[in-house]
Amino acid sequence: MTTDIWVNETLYAGWGQRFRVVRELARARSDFQDILIFESETHGRVMLLDGAVQITEMDEFVYQEMLAHVPLLAHGDARRVLIIGAGDGGVLRRVLQHRNIERAVMVEIDGEVIRLAKEFLPAIAGDAWNDPRAEVLVADGIDYVRRAEAGSFDVVIVDSTDPIGVGEALFTDEFYANAARLLTDRGVVVNQCGVPAMQAEELAETSLRRAKSFPDIAAYVAAVPTYVGGLMTLGWSGKDPALRAVPTEEIRRRAERAGILGTTGYWTPEIHAGAFNLPPYIAKHLPPRG
Amino acid sequence: MTTDIWVNETLYAGWGQRFRVVRELARARSDFQDILIFESETHGRVMLLDGAVQITEMDEFVYQEMLAHVPLLAHGDARRVLIIGAGDGGVLRRVLQHRNIERAVMVEIDGEVIRLAKEFLPAIAGDAWNDPRAEVLVADGIDYVRRAEAGSFDVVIVDSTDPIGVGEALFTDEFYANAARLLTDRGVVVNQCGVPAMQAEELAETSLRRAKSFPDIAAYVAAVPTYVGGLMTLGWSGKDPALRAVPTEEIRRRAERAGILGTTGYWTPEIHAGAFNLPPYIAKHLPPRG
Repeated sequence: MTTDIWVNETLYAGWGQRFRVVRELARARSDFQDILIFESETHGRVMLLDGAVQITEMDEFVYQEMLAHVPLLAHGDARRVLIIGAGDGGVLRRVLQHRNIERAVMVEIDGEVIRLAKEFLPAIAGDAWNDPRAEVLVADGIDYVRRAEAGSFDVVIVDSTDPIGVGEALFTDEFYANAARLLTDRGVVVNQCGVPAMQAEELAETSLRRAKSFPDIAAYVAAVPTYVGGLMTLGWSGKDPALRAVPTEEIRRRAERAGILGTTGYWTPEIHAGAFNLPPYIAKHLPPRG
Repeated sequence: MTTDIWVNETLYAGWGQRFRVVRELARARSDFQDILIFESETHGRVMLLDGAVQITEMDEFVYQEMLAHVPLLAHGDARRVLIIGAGDGGVLRRVLQHRNIERAVMVEIDGEVIRLAKEFLPAIAGDAWNDPRAEVLVADGIDYVRRAEAGSFDVVIVDSTDPIGVGEALFTDEFYANAARLLTDRGVVVNQCGVPAMQAEELAETSLRRAKSFPDIAAYVAAVPTYVGGLMTLGWSGKDPALRAVPTEEIRRRAERAGILGTTGYWTPEIHAGAFNLPPYIAKHLPPRG
């Protein structure tokens, strides 16, 4: 038996997950953050940014499916999608799975994440990088939304790190005001809001900020195995509450038309609908309904 | 800064969670297993059996509520409940919350778990130990179900460790055959079936075994923060499929009558109904529907 090497996630000071390392693949300090990619014994390849797990090959489908399919199918006619962050390309891939998508712009601030993901995590994005509908920009998402034309996107997906470090500016009033402006009438922004069992203030604070620019503030949940701590919440900032009340059968028809039905490991029409039912321990962190 | 002390969960060889320890409270080797109770920095008090987290004060409500309220409210007229395991008393407490319960028998094989939980985790069971409807036996659950009278219980709740070590015999054909015998006509057994992202075979194997004694085999899910690895499954072995198809509004009425509505942190009527909708990555481990 050889000596073990472990990676300990350091997202929380006093608790976290650890992985036994088969092989270190890349370790870099970019202009923005520490990047680590390794082969784990249990979860395939794993990427951490600043010590926090971002993605593992084993369970990435849960997060990507719920972040991409829920807003796109709730909208029903989304053709232009803006993705902020998500440098591994996983969200881009799931967005482009939808037949009706005409344009997917992905704005990732850290080109080193994209470069390393292409080299060491090629399965995550698959062929998405070469899709003619995709436009991948290494740029500041804050700046992009500031300059984007009004009404130029149907859905915005924010796949950020937590609101500390490089991801922090994605949770400001200005960002959400610009997101509201660049969206079409029935447009929606989804963003990851952390794991409320450990980070309840993240959901509470970003919900209050999002409420300044959007009339329909909600959240939905997904149990992502390596975002440890139970349910993670995905923030929902919409202009039209009807998007959250689409009957399950209509969601199923849309998924069929879009080419999504039967391709998923986590998302189903029933799970889509049920994900908006929050446990009381999470619901209490949302702003009261007006 | 003083030197840290950490507890590493050892349930899986190459992956797991770790807790920073504020204070060790109890460490014992019973006739059956290693028991560790400590005060954590993040999750209140925590108990491990044979290196696997069983309960934390912070998130015990998720597991207990879903294990107790779902079968009792799906049944609708459960008066006599048998609990196997659950030595901390948490399931007993949630069962006794239901006004209509007349008798709750708890059979825990390891008296040392009960003794240490009463001393160091008193908040988990509260006053349940002294409830006149409760009968707490330190005995072998296998043996108890073998001798129990036919039709003497409405619901059986199996809160076991994983099917290794002391919990193993609770997952046998004989156990489920006896459980079917001791249940009334609309009776149901629920049991924890692990976290499929890490332990898929546990759900698959116990489902096949349960199917030999029960006509209605299913599973429902709960995201328990410290049963790390995403959704955990709770196995459902019923005699009457109608119990899983009770409308949400009827579940709400039953919860109101039983005194449960408004007392929960995770369970709601909507979450109750939605929990039977399994993600495909979990559903594929259940036996095909006949």
